[in-house]
Amino acid sequence: MKKRPYRNGEMWDFEAEIMKPQHQQQAVILGLDGGTTSTVCVCVPFKIDSEDGPLQPEEPPSVLARAVAGCSNHNSVGETAARETLERVMAETLSKAGATRSAVLAVCLAVSGVDHSTDQYRILNWLRQIFPSHVRLYVQNDSVAALASGTMGKLHGCVLIAGTGTIAYGYTEDGRQARAAGAGPILGDWGSGYGIAAQALTAVVRAHDGRGPQTTLTESILHALDLSSPDELIGWTYEDPSWARIAALLPYVVSCAEAGDQVANGILLDAVQELASSVKAVVQRLGLCGEDGMNHFPLVMVGGVLEANKRWDIGKEVVNCISKDFPGALPIHPKVEPAVGAALLAWNFLMIQSRKDALRS
Amino acid sequence: MKKRPYRNGEMWDFEAEIMKPQHQQQAVILGLDGGTTSTVCVCVPFKIDSEDGPLQPEEPPSVLARAVAGCSNHNSVGETAARETLERVMAETLSKAGATRSAVLAVCLAVSGVDHSTDQYRILNWLRQIFPSHVRLYVQNDSVAALASGTMGKLHGCVLIAGTGTIAYGYTEDGRQARAAGAGPILGDWGSGYGIAAQALTAVVRAHDGRGPQTTLTESILHALDLSSPDELIGWTYEDPSWARIAALLPYVVSCAEAGDQVANGILLDAVQELASSVKAVVQRLGLCGEDGMNHFPLVMVGGVLEANKRWDIGKEVVNCISKDFPGALPIHPKVEPAVGAALLAWNFLMIQSRKDALRS
Repeated sequence: MKKRPYRNGEMWDFEAEIMKPQHQQQAVILGLDGGTTSTVCVCVPFKIDSEDGPLQPEEPPSVLARAVAGCSNHNSVGETAARETLERVMAETLSKAGATRSAVLAVCLAVSGVDHSTDQYRILNWLRQIFPSHVRLYVQNDSVAALASGTMGKLHGCVLIAGTGTIAYGYTEDGRQARAAGAGPILGDWGSGYGIAAQALTAVVRAHDGRGPQTTLTESILHALDLSSPDELIGWTYEDPSWARIAALLPYVVSCAEAGDQVANGILLDAVQELASSVKAVVQRLGLCGEDGMNHFPLVMVGGVLEANKRWDIGKEVVNCISKDFPGALPIHPKVEPAVGAALLAWNFLMIQSRKDALRS
Repeated sequence: MKKRPYRNGEMWDFEAEIMKPQHQQQAVILGLDGGTTSTVCVCVPFKIDSEDGPLQPEEPPSVLARAVAGCSNHNSVGETAARETLERVMAETLSKAGATRSAVLAVCLAVSGVDHSTDQYRILNWLRQIFPSHVRLYVQNDSVAALASGTMGKLHGCVLIAGTGTIAYGYTEDGRQARAAGAGPILGDWGSGYGIAAQALTAVVRAHDGRGPQTTLTESILHALDLSSPDELIGWTYEDPSWARIAALLPYVVSCAEAGDQVANGILLDAVQELASSVKAVVQRLGLCGEDGMNHFPLVMVGGVLEANKRWDIGKEVVNCISKDFPGALPIHPKVEPAVGAALLAWNFLMIQSRKDALRS
């Protein structure tokens, strides 16, 4: 099938077939989590009481519709392609939910690559052209949605994301924010899936050329990659140095560590220290732990490295390490995905707004 | 000027203008050092005594002509482009020397990316089509030329190369060889110029986000790159992650260390350990130090990281570190470039051959 050229508007044709007038449609919220690997959009129903205004969101909120697309990071694919992906996945989600844009109360786009308010404003201005003027629009970095996925939409606490890459992001109740790591592998994100796997590959090369101790990682990784000698790892690595491809070796490192391999254990222990130090840096800078260091704060844990849930549980070790310094850290493994976190974020913004409006009237 | 399409042979047209018959021309050797950044070819005169055969090469041998071209690593630019570059730079060198291919006694091509004997044979077969049948042809990895540049062509000892990348290569007198590192930055070449600079960039990011101590590297590197905040380093790094661009930050790390910065000093001390461990691994595996660990062996030191020759002298520290384990290491900073090393290698091969021929007759 030939790909149709992108024509703004054509993707919204489905709306003409939705017969219900706006006031009969259920009010909905769109939450979108846009990463470098994929983009997920969800549509959730928004509950309003005729007298009290917005209701607290249920836990976890029901998802009316969900759609998935590719990369929407403008740094990776360019502005035009990123925008087409974002608009298309939102249209698909609403189409699946049988709702028009008029039924939408709020949209929260949480996309990677949004680091400055200039990024935020650029995306907001573009989004404004798609949705009717009554729709509230919010644009955030994707780590904010990850935090919100664990706090039911409340922007407070610290989130640690450790998948292919890693970042720690924190928010205070009065709106201050801080981050640590998230600078990519060249700039030292060592606790990430990529970082752990690259250390393991390095350990195999070092064992082979005599710089390091022997390790079962050699047999395990060569077998996994169908290679016959560590020399071949050089070719394998540089043939396609994509971070996700290397990060995919993480389970072999965990297995070797569980089987007692010293080198693999050392790599995972280092990663635990690295990940914990990112969180500690954020907590310290924001004072999330209070003056005496004992205050409670949510610590949301997201990403494949922290969810392994094996005997060697990286996430659990990271929490232990953080708790020694900050016993008030309340670890949360979110039950919903970050796209739902984005929707909850929009929900929360709407509630705050309605409270402000009520005070004013 | 329009670039002429490559037509095999046309580059050798100059030979028709050299009037001297072959027996009146001086016998010469071609030495070529082909790397990922550039390719250097030199032509040196070969001295023969009519009775004793080849004479020992002078120290250092005079260079009749020299030509430079771009990358000739077949992994980087492909086989066809690599061959055209190699042939063209050899033709240019001979043309400058006023010599024809008939005057050449031997050619040594030392090119990066030659790691297996299959690579060697492929290049030898191609080279055979360019030169008359009397010309002796040798193909080696470029690190072999670097070793030869310090040993007057003798294949014995260990060479440590530390420029943008790093590798240690060793040879025994009976022809065994071993290498360590040289696997690129993903696989842990930490003592390289790239490795040192990447650690420094990481230290700046860590100081900024609270994971690491403050360091003067921040001011020094941001000033050098004309950036105003460590946040901008992320964009700078991934905009063009070429290893040489990052490695070029090395002098700032050395300056900060010399001025007493603890973090910069730590990075350089780690690099020293890394570089020394590559050499130690090679020496150990080959037994270059003899059974009691006290034997003398040449240790050739090549590359920008080892030639800094500042107050903080990385090369000197590496030698100190190696000498503790292997007091017989004889450090050599070559007076000639690796292309001359390649020519010396060919010279040495010729002498060995002539001795063998003499024994046979």
